[in-house]
Amino acid sequence: MGQVKEKRCFICFEPSGLKVEVPSGTTLLDAAHKIGIYLSSICGGDGYCGKCKLIVNKGQFQSRPTTLLTPEEVRENIVLACQSEVVSDITVTVPKSHSLAAGKILTDSDAKRFRNIKGDGEDVDFDLDPLVQKLYLEMTLPSLEDHTADHERLYMTIREKIDAPIIQTGFRVLQKLTPLLNRSDYKVTVTAGSRGGTMEVVELQPGDKSKRNFAVAVDLGTTTVVAHLVNLNNGDTLDSEAIYNSQISFGEDYIRRIIYGEENNAFDELQNRIVHDVNDLIITLAVRQKIDLQDITACVCAGNTAMVHFLLNLDPTGIRREPYIASAGFVPAIRAAEAGIQINKRGLLYCLPSVAAYVGSDMVAGVLATQIYAKDGISLFIDIGTNGEIVLGNKDWLICASSSAGPAFEGSGVKHGMRARNGAIEKFSILANGEIELGVIGGGYPLGICGSGLLDVLAELYVNKIIDRTGRFSSTDDKRLTQSDEGLEYQLAPAQDGAQGITITQADIDNLIRSKAGVFAAIKVLLESTQTKPEDLDAVYLAGGFGNYLNTRQAVIIGMLPDVPLEKIHFVGNTAIAGTKMVLLSRKSLEIAERIAQSMTYFDLMSHPAYMEEFIRAKFLPHTDLSLFPTAGSVN
Amino acid sequence: MGQVKEKRCFICFEPSGLKVEVPSGTTLLDAAHKIGIYLSSICGGDGYCGKCKLIVNKGQFQSRPTTLLTPEEVRENIVLACQSEVVSDITVTVPKSHSLAAGKILTDSDAKRFRNIKGDGEDVDFDLDPLVQKLYLEMTLPSLEDHTADHERLYMTIREKIDAPIIQTGFRVLQKLTPLLNRSDYKVTVTAGSRGGTMEVVELQPGDKSKRNFAVAVDLGTTTVVAHLVNLNNGDTLDSEAIYNSQISFGEDYIRRIIYGEENNAFDELQNRIVHDVNDLIITLAVRQKIDLQDITACVCAGNTAMVHFLLNLDPTGIRREPYIASAGFVPAIRAAEAGIQINKRGLLYCLPSVAAYVGSDMVAGVLATQIYAKDGISLFIDIGTNGEIVLGNKDWLICASSSAGPAFEGSGVKHGMRARNGAIEKFSILANGEIELGVIGGGYPLGICGSGLLDVLAELYVNKIIDRTGRFSSTDDKRLTQSDEGLEYQLAPAQDGAQGITITQADIDNLIRSKAGVFAAIKVLLESTQTKPEDLDAVYLAGGFGNYLNTRQAVIIGMLPDVPLEKIHFVGNTAIAGTKMVLLSRKSLEIAERIAQSMTYFDLMSHPAYMEEFIRAKFLPHTDLSLFPTAGSVN
Repeated sequence: MGQVKEKRCFICFEPSGLKVEVPSGTTLLDAAHKIGIYLSSICGGDGYCGKCKLIVNKGQFQSRPTTLLTPEEVRENIVLACQSEVVSDITVTVPKSHSLAAGKILTDSDAKRFRNIKGDGEDVDFDLDPLVQKLYLEMTLPSLEDHTADHERLYMTIREKIDAPIIQTGFRVLQKLTPLLNRSDYKVTVTAGSRGGTMEVVELQPGDKSKRNFAVAVDLGTTTVVAHLVNLNNGDTLDSEAIYNSQISFGEDYIRRIIYGEENNAFDELQNRIVHDVNDLIITLAVRQKIDLQDITACVCAGNTAMVHFLLNLDPTGIRREPYIASAGFVPAIRAAEAGIQINKRGLLYCLPSVAAYVGSDMVAGVLATQIYAKDGISLFIDIGTNGEIVLGNKDWLICASSSAGPAFEGSGVKHGMRARNGAIEKFSILANGEIELGVIGGGYPLGICGSGLLDVLAELYVNKIIDRTGRFSSTDDKRLTQSDEGLEYQLAPAQDGAQGITITQADIDNLIRSKAGVFAAIKVLLESTQTKPEDLDAVYLAGGFGNYLNTRQAVIIGMLPDVPLEKIHFVGNTAIAGTKMVLLSRKSLEIAERIAQSMTYFDLMSHPAYMEEFIRAKFLPHTDLSLFPTAGSVN
Repeated sequence: MGQVKEKRCFICFEPSGLKVEVPSGTTLLDAAHKIGIYLSSICGGDGYCGKCKLIVNKGQFQSRPTTLLTPEEVRENIVLACQSEVVSDITVTVPKSHSLAAGKILTDSDAKRFRNIKGDGEDVDFDLDPLVQKLYLEMTLPSLEDHTADHERLYMTIREKIDAPIIQTGFRVLQKLTPLLNRSDYKVTVTAGSRGGTMEVVELQPGDKSKRNFAVAVDLGTTTVVAHLVNLNNGDTLDSEAIYNSQISFGEDYIRRIIYGEENNAFDELQNRIVHDVNDLIITLAVRQKIDLQDITACVCAGNTAMVHFLLNLDPTGIRREPYIASAGFVPAIRAAEAGIQINKRGLLYCLPSVAAYVGSDMVAGVLATQIYAKDGISLFIDIGTNGEIVLGNKDWLICASSSAGPAFEGSGVKHGMRARNGAIEKFSILANGEIELGVIGGGYPLGICGSGLLDVLAELYVNKIIDRTGRFSSTDDKRLTQSDEGLEYQLAPAQDGAQGITITQADIDNLIRSKAGVFAAIKVLLESTQTKPEDLDAVYLAGGFGNYLNTRQAVIIGMLPDVPLEKIHFVGNTAIAGTKMVLLSRKSLEIAERIAQSMTYFDLMSHPAYMEEFIRAKFLPHTDLSLFPTAGSVN
């Protein structure tokens, strides 16, 4: 019998019209990935999250049975992309709910709020002293009286400008030094980059090229990647941009991505994805600001430990297995091109140091940005991302932990959850007359709810007794409550003009309560372990990609934050990017970040017996122990 | 008219039988270079040194007229290779006088003499602490109680073994760290190399691979390249080897080579030559000692400033032009492979720092080896190489100068001069009965005279009044004096068995006197400039590739060294290689070498008005002023 020729199928994805040819038997999810179409997927293709729904318009396919589709969905030819293999040419429609990539994600670009957060400890004002500097040098010409060699003459002149006890020069740069000095009459621009305790002569150019020197600060989020373009000569942020992390198709949390990488030997692919995302951001910013990529001399990244490992293709497998060991917490500065980052071909890539497998450099950046490491009083810092991470301490001690909060406040695991971008409900309130008021980012019809909106919804439903202290819908007679296949749903906006209605389901509320409970339990265990009372707290900083706005009072009402006077609670937005920019602009900040990472004590909540108990107690609104929440208790 | 096809000619070089095909019109010198046949040449092919003689056996050639061949030579078909272009296939004979490459050059391999030279200043005994070390590490396994990341765990373990405040790791090494640790149960061998104030993790290997760690110390001489193979685990020198610098065909001194490189855009070619020579030595040593090149982790070089520039292909053109500026005096450690040196592919190449364009790292090595930088008393250090270089000083100050001595004591510019190797006359004396006694290295019939022999000849001819104080043959009735086309010659050995007779010509004597006068004038100017009297000198060190033996008394008699008590004069051989090995074996020595290079004051003799006067005064045997040489004056 002759060999059967592999059958090829064309798949057309509507409404974009993008087409791809694949062997028959390929899943629709794999095919979508292949041409970069984003489909929501939490399980990474294992078939149990039910997120990757597609509508098949025409063509043949084979699907494995699933309980995650309703009979109506099956009748409407809705399939799970990961469980459906193509058999013939096929046309599918990608529902609007997947199109997360549309609209601009808020990037927290001004970060002006940090100007108001000052330490009361040591002086934390930094002089502008960027990691990579362009120095224009007019060197003294050699003479019979001064026969210093060109190489040493260069170093002497650099040291007149900046503090650089150890200077290093790459061999190729050294080789071109003398011809360049002769050509330029000893007037040159040196690009000098800080590299692990030394200063490297990264590049040499004739004449004065010091005017244009830029860098990019990147927050490598599990879900969202944010980049800010910074002018290194004055510290100004010129522009910012954010995109979804395109690794999402391999799993919405990084543990799934590590598993995917291990099982498919796909760490190269994971690296390519995130590098591609970062390059996308850099190129977008550079084109928009008319900046030559060669004038971008540094890229500084912060992120959770796994994301940094993905970016650099360091082995991340120890992160998910006991005893939970990273390959590197401290990462040396490398040539950005070595990792595929498209800036100046000899430009440097820095990653901020992380503390442990589950406490990444984004937390170090947060501690740096809020300056709690420099304060006499005790601060509590909470960063709600895909996990909830917490730091407690002051200038003498810092303790940190990672809670299993889950990504509900990032909109994951919430039916109509979305990131803070145009179309997201960021504010929600129930008026005295029973009507509801929505604040939608960018105005217009809502497409979903972002973190700050979800916080409002949970608080308002509770305060208005639509849900009880366990989060159950307590009355079924509210006009906005409807019964669906998934149980009761509270309608925030009706379906309209073909757009879906926006609702909150019982499952959504349960997820949000689990999330806030995870955060509060972590706070409580950390406070008790350090014998810190809530009244000892001088400040509570809440960070995360919630959006521009956050009603901190609601965070207390639902019992996510301890019930301290509201003026002590500060919503600080994206501290990962803020701290990263501080490092970019000041070598001293990098040193401080390294000291923070080194000195922070990691507290392992998962193996702490009290954590699960506290979690269970916190799974009520606001808590089983109302005495902890005098403010919240009094509202209901 | 059609294009004329280029005519090709075959050249056969006897007695080796090596053949090469070249275009007609190629000079015989270029053809010889092309296949690596060494022909003596001082002028680099300009046709005025008359050294590159060949005998044409058959075939056609075109020669430019020259006054450098006698009518007899022309009749015997002797030609200057650089002035003769091939016209047809041709067979030539390379005279024995060119075959410098035969026989082993003395490499001063034991250097045991340095054990007897102790400083009376600070303690200069170094612990074995090589520039590149292989450390076998049994790391503590990570646990839930100790979640230090692999990268930081490695650094902590390294720091338990060695002093390393700043450690750096290349990106590719870091990427393989975690898989390697897991595979090897956290038992690894780290190759750690010192790089400009930091320690680099050069390589990582599973298990204990620390037993075999070797390095090569290289003296990059203008004429001779010497290499010693060293066991880094115990400091032992295992073997040594030397070859002629194959750049010689571009000029016997480095100034000519720089000119050649500039005029022919041939610095790549100059680099290739010296790199090839160093690789030749390394491979020879490795093969002979059955050592894998991958186990050679470092190569440390010293040489004059130009040679180091050639090796690294740094722009050397400033060295020969006012104001005489090197591209680099201090050179960073680089990956040896970057320069083409064939050791471990990630092994490091170090060049010792030099002081100025005309005072190279070989002098720094000499100061280090003799430890004059550490002594209370004042020492004078003289290194007779292609130039004569001089250092004067003690633990508080060091001053150095380069004389225009010329390479006569290396055998260049001397009719039968040769390097110290088998066949060289290294001792010469005239007995009471008028007979002469020769000491020939390796015994047998002499092939020429090396430096120590030339010193003896000059002294003995003077003491025995065969030459007068101006160096002229004073009596023509000595039986060994014969008249040739070049004037009077003194016969040291008669022609025999087809081998040439060995003679000293008037021109040879003039060259030797010029050489010694250059050295002594430099010494005198340095002494006077520093107000040092000869009797203030605690020690005089004479270095150079003279051979195993040197009669220091003769050096005083001819007026090359000041007339101090003989017990103060030490012949110290090749201090360049001795100092280089000290650096190789001790990081502290490298620091000291850097301090020496930085602190040494360069004294420019050429622009000093007294130097030429002193030179003229020193052009007598021993000097115009006999009161300076009571010992020497009394012998005649």
